[in-house]
Amino acid sequence: MAENSRTATETRAARREALRDLLRRSGLDALLVTDLLNIRYLTGFTGSNAALLVHAGGDDRTLFCTDGRYTTQAAAEVPDLERVLGRASAATLLAQAAAKADDYARTGFESQYVSVEQHAALAEAADEVELHRAPGLVERLRVVKDETEVEALRRACAAADRALAELIEHGGLRPGRTEREVARDLENRMLDHGSEGPSFTSIVAAGANSAIPHHRPSDAVLAAGDFVKLDFGATVDGYHSDMTRTVVLGTAADWQRELYELVLHAQAAGRAAVVPGAEVAAVDGAARDVIAAAGRGEEFSHGLGHGVGLQIHEAPSLAATGAGTLSAGMAVTVEPGVYLAGRGGVRIEDTLVVREGTPELLTLTSKELAVV
Amino acid sequence: MAENSRTATETRAARREALRDLLRRSGLDALLVTDLLNIRYLTGFTGSNAALLVHAGGDDRTLFCTDGRYTTQAAAEVPDLERVLGRASAATLLAQAAAKADDYARTGFESQYVSVEQHAALAEAADEVELHRAPGLVERLRVVKDETEVEALRRACAAADRALAELIEHGGLRPGRTEREVARDLENRMLDHGSEGPSFTSIVAAGANSAIPHHRPSDAVLAAGDFVKLDFGATVDGYHSDMTRTVVLGTAADWQRELYELVLHAQAAGRAAVVPGAEVAAVDGAARDVIAAAGRGEEFSHGLGHGVGLQIHEAPSLAATGAGTLSAGMAVTVEPGVYLAGRGGVRIEDTLVVREGTPELLTLTSKELAVV
Repeated sequence: MAENSRTATETRAARREALRDLLRRSGLDALLVTDLLNIRYLTGFTGSNAALLVHAGGDDRTLFCTDGRYTTQAAAEVPDLERVLGRASAATLLAQAAAKADDYARTGFESQYVSVEQHAALAEAADEVELHRAPGLVERLRVVKDETEVEALRRACAAADRALAELIEHGGLRPGRTEREVARDLENRMLDHGSEGPSFTSIVAAGANSAIPHHRPSDAVLAAGDFVKLDFGATVDGYHSDMTRTVVLGTAADWQRELYELVLHAQAAGRAAVVPGAEVAAVDGAARDVIAAAGRGEEFSHGLGHGVGLQIHEAPSLAATGAGTLSAGMAVTVEPGVYLAGRGGVRIEDTLVVREGTPELLTLTSKELAVV
Repeated sequence: MAENSRTATETRAARREALRDLLRRSGLDALLVTDLLNIRYLTGFTGSNAALLVHAGGDDRTLFCTDGRYTTQAAAEVPDLERVLGRASAATLLAQAAAKADDYARTGFESQYVSVEQHAALAEAADEVELHRAPGLVERLRVVKDETEVEALRRACAAADRALAELIEHGGLRPGRTEREVARDLENRMLDHGSEGPSFTSIVAAGANSAIPHHRPSDAVLAAGDFVKLDFGATVDGYHSDMTRTVVLGTAADWQRELYELVLHAQAAGRAAVVPGAEVAAVDGAARDVIAAAGRGEEFSHGLGHGVGLQIHEAPSLAATGAGTLSAGMAVTVEPGVYLAGRGGVRIEDTLVVREGTPELLTLTSKELAVV
């Protein structure tokens, strides 16, 4: 069966089965999942209170808990698991486990999220069940996207592509507008194209502000000759797109063309290095070397990219200090930038999926220097 | 000196001094603050990575840490504290404390937020410094708002008031529009009036959807005769407003008028009970009794209200199960609702500040039944 012909229910069941494999290899009888994104990934539930107790023995021993506000929603979103009601959802499930302590002797919990106070409460509810630190198990699965996830990312990237095309077509990037106005226009157009909301606070940075890597949109006014850097994204089914384009208003000066070409070249080198098996640090290096060779290494002050999915920033980190290698199906950004303080900066960013051979580009907006 | 004539820097210094008082009473030499909202409250810093080590001995022994991305921003926002740079900000500060372990012998940490994994890393950095669970100390201060905070809440409430008035004035609530369109229109108008963004996902619920307490805006179309319930808010300086109004499109039926009057009466009773010293459960009861007396107790399925500030939901909880009493300066919502499944529901909500005598109403939109 091709993965993209699976139903959503089957896809989630497959994710839980993959998690069980990790549980068995970790010597755990069960995992208490409390992070809401991990719960959404494993069950499809989108409410604000839930816990999931995945038993290594199978879905028929796996329990989902939410509270009375979500009875109807949980029945619709999680039809395939036994559902329990309780306000203190994690403690409720552990109390059930405690009643069959032999079956849950070694139960993992998401120690990267569970607070010290929560842990104390859970340990009490767990009674004879031993709670074991088990950080990052679901995240290990999430790092490689299945086709359902890639399709959501594709749609999120398409919403951003279309919004930017429309913004430019309708003269949305014109001298006299403020950064804030442009950001809002862009976000509204993403909503028009199916976005559930911006992926993160949109960055619109004009003129010298474009040299600030994470500038927040201000009342600064766009002027002729400015670089305008736009870093933004849409969300679809909870999945985040991430794209940066830098344009010039009116006429591009020579220094602007040179800077743009440099970053464009570095970005292409970075994308070309995105292949299964590549060390993440080497991918960063591929783009960074281009910029360093031009004597601008100091002015590329951040990592090359990051994984993207249910979170805007997730594993893997494509950075000089990053560890590990790429695998097919990972979704990552490639976003080199060079920032000349007080003058202006350029960043060019795509979201792409690691594939055998060439990566699949999800953000399709042209990267030719746009002079608008 | 009147509190509202204080500078922002003085206000924050006063908050840290109040925290020191709690530290001394808890027998702590210092508190490691890692929650970003608590750090914002105590220092004004708005970046995404920081830690603060408040020493009971004074601001001259208090350390702030962020990373290199925020050097300039931290100098501007936190001019009055010693600033240290480090990517692992909390561990960086604990390493400094460890070098003077005698001064930091008993150091508290925010155990309600620090994860089990983070705690393990912090304990290592702390070396001979003893880390003590100290949940909720800053929150105990935040529950009573100072005048700087009330002013931010006032402005956030005013943005919401103005947006709703404009929406109605411009025919934004008309048959044929979708809930989603109305929500977006409202959110854009709040931005026009100074909101940094919606306080939470706006609720616009038309017709039978108005009976769903936390309905998300859908493509459902507004129709003549519908109740339309709007629950929304703006943010200003990080502070959240929260208001619900329920209107009728066209002509109100008798059952709608009756239901509306009941909730309005309950809301007035709830507001009247908001006085310093009142038990939170009794405030909830004052409104709930009105609804129960009309035989609708089962259909008021949530608590009466909640505290509001840097978070949309914070202490105190005005609920039957809530504990504690109100104090002057607390900011709370009062929001009874009655929901008739399949027909429609009414909720009326204000944000107000507890004062000696009558509470200060921050959401000023009329609560007369609006037929638009």
